[in-house]
Amino acid sequence: MPRKAVSKSEDNGGEKVYTADIIKKAVLEKMKNLGERVYRDLVRGSFPELDIPSRTTKNIVYNEELRQYVLGGKMKERTTRNIRHLRPFAQLLWIASFAKRLLEAGKTSTLRDTYYVAIGEGIDFEDQDESDEMIMELESIIDSPREDFNIFPEERAAIYGDLVIEYTVPGFRGKRVDLSSHPDGFAIGPALTTAEFVKCGAEVLFVIEKGAVFSRFVEEGADKKYKALLLHTAGQSPRNARKLIRRLHEELNLPVYIFTDADPYGVHIASVLIHGSALSAHIKGINIPDAVWAGVWASDITRYKLPSMKLSDQDIKRLSELEQDPRYQTDPWRKEIKEFWRIKRKAELEAFSKYGLDFIVKEFLPERLAELQKR
Amino acid sequence: MPRKAVSKSEDNGGEKVYTADIIKKAVLEKMKNLGERVYRDLVRGSFPELDIPSRTTKNIVYNEELRQYVLGGKMKERTTRNIRHLRPFAQLLWIASFAKRLLEAGKTSTLRDTYYVAIGEGIDFEDQDESDEMIMELESIIDSPREDFNIFPEERAAIYGDLVIEYTVPGFRGKRVDLSSHPDGFAIGPALTTAEFVKCGAEVLFVIEKGAVFSRFVEEGADKKYKALLLHTAGQSPRNARKLIRRLHEELNLPVYIFTDADPYGVHIASVLIHGSALSAHIKGINIPDAVWAGVWASDITRYKLPSMKLSDQDIKRLSELEQDPRYQTDPWRKEIKEFWRIKRKAELEAFSKYGLDFIVKEFLPERLAELQKR
Repeated sequence: MPRKAVSKSEDNGGEKVYTADIIKKAVLEKMKNLGERVYRDLVRGSFPELDIPSRTTKNIVYNEELRQYVLGGKMKERTTRNIRHLRPFAQLLWIASFAKRLLEAGKTSTLRDTYYVAIGEGIDFEDQDESDEMIMELESIIDSPREDFNIFPEERAAIYGDLVIEYTVPGFRGKRVDLSSHPDGFAIGPALTTAEFVKCGAEVLFVIEKGAVFSRFVEEGADKKYKALLLHTAGQSPRNARKLIRRLHEELNLPVYIFTDADPYGVHIASVLIHGSALSAHIKGINIPDAVWAGVWASDITRYKLPSMKLSDQDIKRLSELEQDPRYQTDPWRKEIKEFWRIKRKAELEAFSKYGLDFIVKEFLPERLAELQKR
Repeated sequence: MPRKAVSKSEDNGGEKVYTADIIKKAVLEKMKNLGERVYRDLVRGSFPELDIPSRTTKNIVYNEELRQYVLGGKMKERTTRNIRHLRPFAQLLWIASFAKRLLEAGKTSTLRDTYYVAIGEGIDFEDQDESDEMIMELESIIDSPREDFNIFPEERAAIYGDLVIEYTVPGFRGKRVDLSSHPDGFAIGPALTTAEFVKCGAEVLFVIEKGAVFSRFVEEGADKKYKALLLHTAGQSPRNARKLIRRLHEELNLPVYIFTDADPYGVHIASVLIHGSALSAHIKGINIPDAVWAGVWASDITRYKLPSMKLSDQDIKRLSELEQDPRYQTDPWRKEIKEFWRIKRKAELEAFSKYGLDFIVKEFLPERLAELQKR
């Protein structure tokens, strides 16, 4: 059944108001509150202070309701009473003021770019790591991902399929594009991430690690056969692509299936999409707990007699890390990690081409989907 | 003056014939000739033999007319008379037959993918390096890049701007898309690489190494201000993007300006676009001799007082290599490499953000273009 997206835009006396506008307004409001808190203290003649959520591993807990790792209640106090806190306090305020300017100007930036602007404005960051850290602190304080204050990743995923979007970014507001009009895929940058979904004929979303396999799915017509949107992460999924996948799942009710290589890195790519990354435990809404890792599993290597390679030392190291990680203590993760240890081999998505280029779409895909739906 | 592209498609009794079709037909013809040569020998009862262009550095020479490095006249003989030649001979024929099947089926593949198909069909390749080598031998024998027999890179560049294209790939033949309709950019895969240019309002092409700077150019309206197409290589440009840039230059007469980081890797990215890479000296038509490296130059670091970092050991190593390379013996390369040695520092494209996000488009870009046009 094709889904028709309900546009969330509201009429506001002529000018359309998009979800992206509402998010932007809410974030600006939070920035304003942050500024006012500091300002009030200063006017009162007291030292400004902030409570900042602690982002250490000890303060990361699993939230059953959200089905993701989140920060616990531990806070660290940052007070201008302490001379050693003054520098990070000022850095944080500058980041917030820069974010505010970005939102007001309708411009975007990246972590790297922000660092250079800071240098230009005489803000004393030791290196980019330090400004990145402040951006993450701001995320945790205002409880919004940095994409919501227009700081986007450098990397680009791409998407293709039966979905019409409407842009909300300056210069393109109200314009629409049909994502089935370019089979190589639409790069997912600031404009696509913040677009509204207008009309969707797709019923499922396939998320694919590799460009070659994305092309294969397009060429074999997987988008039509399964009424599927195809999204190519180009390795580890950029954060804004994770956010987009979440929106496609929530707003359009699309089930999400993830296809990665059968190696510890592929396991990690799938898991970050599903459980979130440790680095972003302070961010809600960019993981997809309902998404399903559909392969390639370690057990598929034997089952499909896939051409495989020995696990490298780095794979082994990563596998040991996965084994310790609380996110991998249930099946299929536990079972598949065990299988990796048993066979000590890995295989790529392209390995199915052993049985011909169309095997992955014509044989593997229907088999796997049927199997997952029986669960 | 906006250019109107002259479509090269011809009417062929109803079914349109695209340039891509003509290329495909020519490549199939070359494959057929290759097969016939071997077959004829077999029928005659003599040992099949092939002369294969030598791709060693000693056989790479600069061709003044083509303004690129090409292979010299040195050939190596591969004869089935020699038992040690039998294996690579058979491997090469299999690659050619696979390429023929790809073209006939209208499907694409990658180097990696091809390796797995080979395994599946019982072809004895030690590893992927060996099958890659055979694909490059086939390129050199039939004098066509592998994209012309549908083997494409995994990586994706992206493009945005005032250009309407018409697809030639199965399922999309005759459909058109306006590349100004998606500001995050259209991924450049098999469909875009082989598309015809139908209508172009752009007068120049800016090729940009970094995603952040591509977004900056879009947001600051560089496409409109300069009537520019914007192409984002995402680091080293994938081969098919190089081919596309060449086509945009040749078919639409667009001047090409390249923007990279000011570091030895950025120099290399620009130079490969202009002179071709040593690895593809056996391929014609995927470099752009008229393209201009527009920055960031080593000399810009001092001139614009850009935030900079010390060259790493790897940068130093790469710089020494560049110094030995015949492609870098003229200015601006020689001059800028000298400057790198003098200051021993590097800077990124984003470093211009020191002067505000819009500086790179509003100040640097017009200054640099004026300067280059005076030369």
